[in-house]
Amino acid sequence: MAHFADRLTAAVQARATPLCVGLDPRWDSLPLALRQRFDASPAGRASAYEAFCLRVLDIVAPHAGVIKPQSAFFEACGPDGLKALLAVMRRARQLGLVTILDAKRGDIASTAEAYAEMAFDVYDADAITLNPYLGKDAIEPFLKRARQNERGLFVLVRTSNPGGGQFQNLAAAGKPLYVHVADAVESWSNESRGGCGLGDVGAVVGATHPTELRELRKIMPSAIFLVPGYGAQGASAADTAGAFLPGGRGAVVNSARGITFPFKPDDANWEAAIDAATQQAAHELGQAANPHP
Amino acid sequence: MAHFADRLTAAVQARATPLCVGLDPRWDSLPLALRQRFDASPAGRASAYEAFCLRVLDIVAPHAGVIKPQSAFFEACGPDGLKALLAVMRRARQLGLVTILDAKRGDIASTAEAYAEMAFDVYDADAITLNPYLGKDAIEPFLKRARQNERGLFVLVRTSNPGGGQFQNLAAAGKPLYVHVADAVESWSNESRGGCGLGDVGAVVGATHPTELRELRKIMPSAIFLVPGYGAQGASAADTAGAFLPGGRGAVVNSARGITFPFKPDDANWEAAIDAATQQAAHELGQAANPHP
Repeated sequence: MAHFADRLTAAVQARATPLCVGLDPRWDSLPLALRQRFDASPAGRASAYEAFCLRVLDIVAPHAGVIKPQSAFFEACGPDGLKALLAVMRRARQLGLVTILDAKRGDIASTAEAYAEMAFDVYDADAITLNPYLGKDAIEPFLKRARQNERGLFVLVRTSNPGGGQFQNLAAAGKPLYVHVADAVESWSNESRGGCGLGDVGAVVGATHPTELRELRKIMPSAIFLVPGYGAQGASAADTAGAFLPGGRGAVVNSARGITFPFKPDDANWEAAIDAATQQAAHELGQAANPHP
Repeated sequence: MAHFADRLTAAVQARATPLCVGLDPRWDSLPLALRQRFDASPAGRASAYEAFCLRVLDIVAPHAGVIKPQSAFFEACGPDGLKALLAVMRRARQLGLVTILDAKRGDIASTAEAYAEMAFDVYDADAITLNPYLGKDAIEPFLKRARQNERGLFVLVRTSNPGGGQFQNLAAAGKPLYVHVADAVESWSNESRGGCGLGDVGAVVGATHPTELRELRKIMPSAIFLVPGYGAQGASAADTAGAFLPGGRGAVVNSARGITFPFKPDDANWEAAIDAATQQAAHELGQAANPHP
């Protein structure tokens, strides 16, 4: 396998869009036609999530090169949910998609190693999202494991939620906490860069703060940005523009609900709706990334 | 069920010790006699972890009222590992133990709700550990769910790892980040207190920083402390003294390796070693909590 940043960059360039499809399956949003084949028990929901997500992968794969399953929704179905996640990750690999397991883990020493094993060995993820609160001890075991296998990490820097600033915006030594985290991410990212010039440690930076996005792009020139907040969370494609390096490089923009649930549950044409939403978002974000192609 | 803080306090008082037994199963540390019954595949390890942890629960239950399984080690075995975790949580419930699922989750909105469902519904945990980096949006969905079911939360405040201060010690508005988090924890904890006077939102505060422990005890008079760092991580029982309120109330002290792996893998008397280590730690921590009983 090639360096993580090169693989992700190639996946983005092949489809000329930074769109990353978020897989956040919810029972109540699933197509009725599909829900009727299963029951709402944890095992039933897990089977429904698997069937739905596999179908989504087939529909989106021609238009988006990166996917991001949200671990929580699979975990909420218990052990059967994790079997479904395994099936989803395998199909994504078969389709040549780059996978980011959104798990926001953060723990230290041998516990971090166990989480890295979970992400990279069990689920064969290309990257995992991490929480920086525990400091470098919580990142380095993942880094070591990622570098042995050409994988990547995305560290939470500035999140897209309304209350994200409660601690992230606290100013210490003249700059907010999230800038301290950004400095650390840039330093880790710089340690291992691919041929594309980008590193294997990226940053999660919400599109709901376009000014901070531009500021953070300057602070982390080596880091790939994973940008949530576009679409259902309120940010427009234009709001993501600050995330990109010249040539539309260096960022992927996540859309979950907007891509996977653009229909009412009783809509028989849900697959066509997903296809149309994917193409629309891929085009719109492709333009935002490359305003003057 | 009674209020979480009352249940935890009763479990501690019944055994006159704040000892919390951490379940961090590691394949290489398991008794050889047990390892030989399984293979080192994820499924084999999961079965071995289950067998080992169930045996540990039976041994420690008379001496310690609280257990803390570390989710990562079970997750590293894939879906089968989660089945093992389920069995461990069920046995703990049958034995009347209070369970803290150490998962350090942190996510927002419906994702946080899914994690709360995972912790409280799927695994029936009495409490889960959480990461505060995303702000109150990442705590409140758990709070809501916990309060519907008399469960508890433990929020990371000051962790016991060497690099824990990298971000936690940054000073903003005249006090370190971890004190800002402590203020928030105290406020959440105060919203719902049990008959014992303690709230349902606790704080993770490492025993490796005894001075900070005393300082944080003053800042969070309503919060139950979950104290890692004792034993194998370097802190003594005396180092935990600052965590307690008068009467030895208000804190549990975790020991994982020191309790579950006090033997060499080829030691046939590993169960007796666990029993002795548990009684020793329970006694030592009981003294630290109540220096003048």
